[in-house]
Amino acid sequence: MTDSPSRPKMITPRKLKGFRDYEPTASQTRQHIIATLWQTAKTHGFETIDTPILEFAEILMGSGGTETDKEVYRFEDNGGRDVALRFDLTVPFARYVAENQGTMIQPFKRLQIGEVFRGEKPQKGRYRQFCQGDFDIIGPDTIVSDVEILLFLKANLDALIPAPTTIFISHREILSGIIKHTVPQLAEGQETAMLIWIDKWDKISREKLVEGLSGVEGCSPEQAEQLVTTLSGLKNPAKPVAELIEPMAPAEPLLAACQRFDATIAALQQVAAEGHAQFAVDLSIARGLGYYTGIVMETKIDSLPSFGSIASGGRYNGLVSRFSKREFAGVGASIGVDRCLAALEELDKLRTAPAATMYIALFDQDAIPFGLQLAATLRKAAIATDIALKPGKIAQQFKYADKKGIPLVIAIGSHERESKEVTIKRLADGHEEKGVTTEDAAALVSRIADLLK
Amino acid sequence: MTDSPSRPKMITPRKLKGFRDYEPTASQTRQHIIATLWQTAKTHGFETIDTPILEFAEILMGSGGTETDKEVYRFEDNGGRDVALRFDLTVPFARYVAENQGTMIQPFKRLQIGEVFRGEKPQKGRYRQFCQGDFDIIGPDTIVSDVEILLFLKANLDALIPAPTTIFISHREILSGIIKHTVPQLAEGQETAMLIWIDKWDKISREKLVEGLSGVEGCSPEQAEQLVTTLSGLKNPAKPVAELIEPMAPAEPLLAACQRFDATIAALQQVAAEGHAQFAVDLSIARGLGYYTGIVMETKIDSLPSFGSIASGGRYNGLVSRFSKREFAGVGASIGVDRCLAALEELDKLRTAPAATMYIALFDQDAIPFGLQLAATLRKAAIATDIALKPGKIAQQFKYADKKGIPLVIAIGSHERESKEVTIKRLADGHEEKGVTTEDAAALVSRIADLLK
Repeated sequence: MTDSPSRPKMITPRKLKGFRDYEPTASQTRQHIIATLWQTAKTHGFETIDTPILEFAEILMGSGGTETDKEVYRFEDNGGRDVALRFDLTVPFARYVAENQGTMIQPFKRLQIGEVFRGEKPQKGRYRQFCQGDFDIIGPDTIVSDVEILLFLKANLDALIPAPTTIFISHREILSGIIKHTVPQLAEGQETAMLIWIDKWDKISREKLVEGLSGVEGCSPEQAEQLVTTLSGLKNPAKPVAELIEPMAPAEPLLAACQRFDATIAALQQVAAEGHAQFAVDLSIARGLGYYTGIVMETKIDSLPSFGSIASGGRYNGLVSRFSKREFAGVGASIGVDRCLAALEELDKLRTAPAATMYIALFDQDAIPFGLQLAATLRKAAIATDIALKPGKIAQQFKYADKKGIPLVIAIGSHERESKEVTIKRLADGHEEKGVTTEDAAALVSRIADLLK
Repeated sequence: MTDSPSRPKMITPRKLKGFRDYEPTASQTRQHIIATLWQTAKTHGFETIDTPILEFAEILMGSGGTETDKEVYRFEDNGGRDVALRFDLTVPFARYVAENQGTMIQPFKRLQIGEVFRGEKPQKGRYRQFCQGDFDIIGPDTIVSDVEILLFLKANLDALIPAPTTIFISHREILSGIIKHTVPQLAEGQETAMLIWIDKWDKISREKLVEGLSGVEGCSPEQAEQLVTTLSGLKNPAKPVAELIEPMAPAEPLLAACQRFDATIAALQQVAAEGHAQFAVDLSIARGLGYYTGIVMETKIDSLPSFGSIASGGRYNGLVSRFSKREFAGVGASIGVDRCLAALEELDKLRTAPAATMYIALFDQDAIPFGLQLAATLRKAAIATDIALKPGKIAQQFKYADKKGIPLVIAIGSHERESKEVTIKRLADGHEEKGVTTEDAAALVSRIADLLK
């Protein structure tokens, strides 16, 4: 700043409303979530892609409701282009599929992790910028495709959330079929209104729900009552759905959808017994978004019922149709990276590993080369090592290590430099291992491992 | 989309100029770069933080030259706020330090990886959105602080770039001292003009350089000639810098800076012998940015001389001063994640691991449960496994696996379901391992390992 002709005015350090910093504990937890998603993608045969955060507004807008459009960060760039920050990873993926259809080998199983932006009213644990992990299969509309998405979701939840979670599974075609069957006179285009009411099930009383459904054009109070009764029996049903639906004498497509749904659930139950995350059927789940066409899913942490879903998705066979005449069947879901972070915070399970395992204190300038050599040896052996940046009083340096939660310390003075032997001190109980040679890296590492037990 | 009253108009799938998608190979390489930075941070005692992509414009703007400000994506948000996309990670970090100074334990060693945005003219390998990894130490202005940054940089380059690289180290205070000593009548505020010319050294002839320097107010042609001669002797010098400078009878602060610089280089050379990345002194490097106050560094890949720097940084003791009256000494550097990606592309060293190691083909619907169970077993053993999404012709499914580069395949039919024994086929040479039991996971995994040798 010495070159500046005048000192610039002081600016108050602050963030935009609804945006946050991630301090080391939160950032470390986020890192763990992202690395877990990457690892699970590898074992499950999903490939990762990344797309830009900024896109043409016409690419991003207009696919969802107008509600979403109002929340989009949209502006004119310096070149006069109408641009916007992406608000999800689904629309950019649809654009990617359409643009790369010539070279993309199908089926294509993709994971994409990235930041998205929505100018919603900020709430506790919900921000205007947040990170999502989206995974989708563009490929045949089959049982295995649906199962693969659900197993990938479960594998991640098992690894990420150290508490019982439930993946609720519903099916839009079945729900839609039941509505049509129960309310045959429903007015044109009113199904979405019905689904919006059904989506409120958890938040309102049964009376309110029936009343709301009765208010939709073409649905009588008796039909609303009947619909709620039927769907109640399809929350965690004891029997296959097809069996429960059969007495209704359903139309053939509805029965076929139920049979496929039952086969999907059966396949899942055969392979997914272990782990914290369990599957449950709940055919009253609608998930408002217009584009779902088959299975839908959402996820709740059992001990945090009011926390809301941390992962959701479904089958959407028409999404790419905004960009391409060619049909692409898709099924996928999104795990909220920041939703998982908030859940781990609620569960008091944030990762709090200290910045290092070993701290090297330095008595004087002459200690620097040996201290740095020792740090290099330890780091090469993958032992997280920090070193004093300024030689001086050892007690003060140990105090810093203690404040940072670093469990082990070594002080380097003339004796250590000459003898190449050090004392390792464990700060928690003051225990000291004396005369540890630094010449034999393997022995040094094993002494450290013992001290950490 | 069935609910839509009319089919929306078809939109051409395209990206903004200067923005790119990362297809699986590029994305996988990027992931490897990011995971490497995380891992090195862990072993070196750096903690990670994250800050928002969107900030108040007044926080981000005005710290660098006006050149940068023109490139910033700046707009008014829906709440009428003057906001901008961050163009680097240094200014947001300065804001973070100022905002958290009350609770931050110093020294603070931080790594931050994130996307930044600059509306520059797009060039080969340079985009308007790109990812950087910034690492800094806020703490004492000492030799160890400078060395720790340089060692962290080297550790990452060693892990990331499988080719010889050179980290060129210079020192702004020494360069400035030499300019002042050689050109004592230099006009007020003209040092930056001198540094800009010196920064062009690699791109222009010696004559042009001397001519350019002579054009700066207060610098005679003889002085320009003398300066270039002195600095030439400080490119990869054979002796300590202090020894080379001494005959000039330098001012005391310049001599002290040279001595500290020599001690820094000596410490580095004692601990950093191994690896592809090597250190070299070049005191003709200025790195234009106004805020550097001590050591500066940049990095080149030896076999790609015209590729430019992939990592650079330096000491900047005044950066937080825009946001806080309290002084914070800082030293740090930035590794270009996307610059590394482009370099690996040039070196033909992108990561091209196939999407999976094993592909499970399915003969018919009845094969699904056993196929999924086998996939679960293999995935649990960390073997990347993909499975046919649609049962049918085995030959077609094997062909898909081959196109995806998956080396091993198993076909599941009634025989395999009943006997729990499978044949593993290696596609590269058609070799078949018959009668492999799937009941013993350890034996299965070891047979697979043998087939991959």
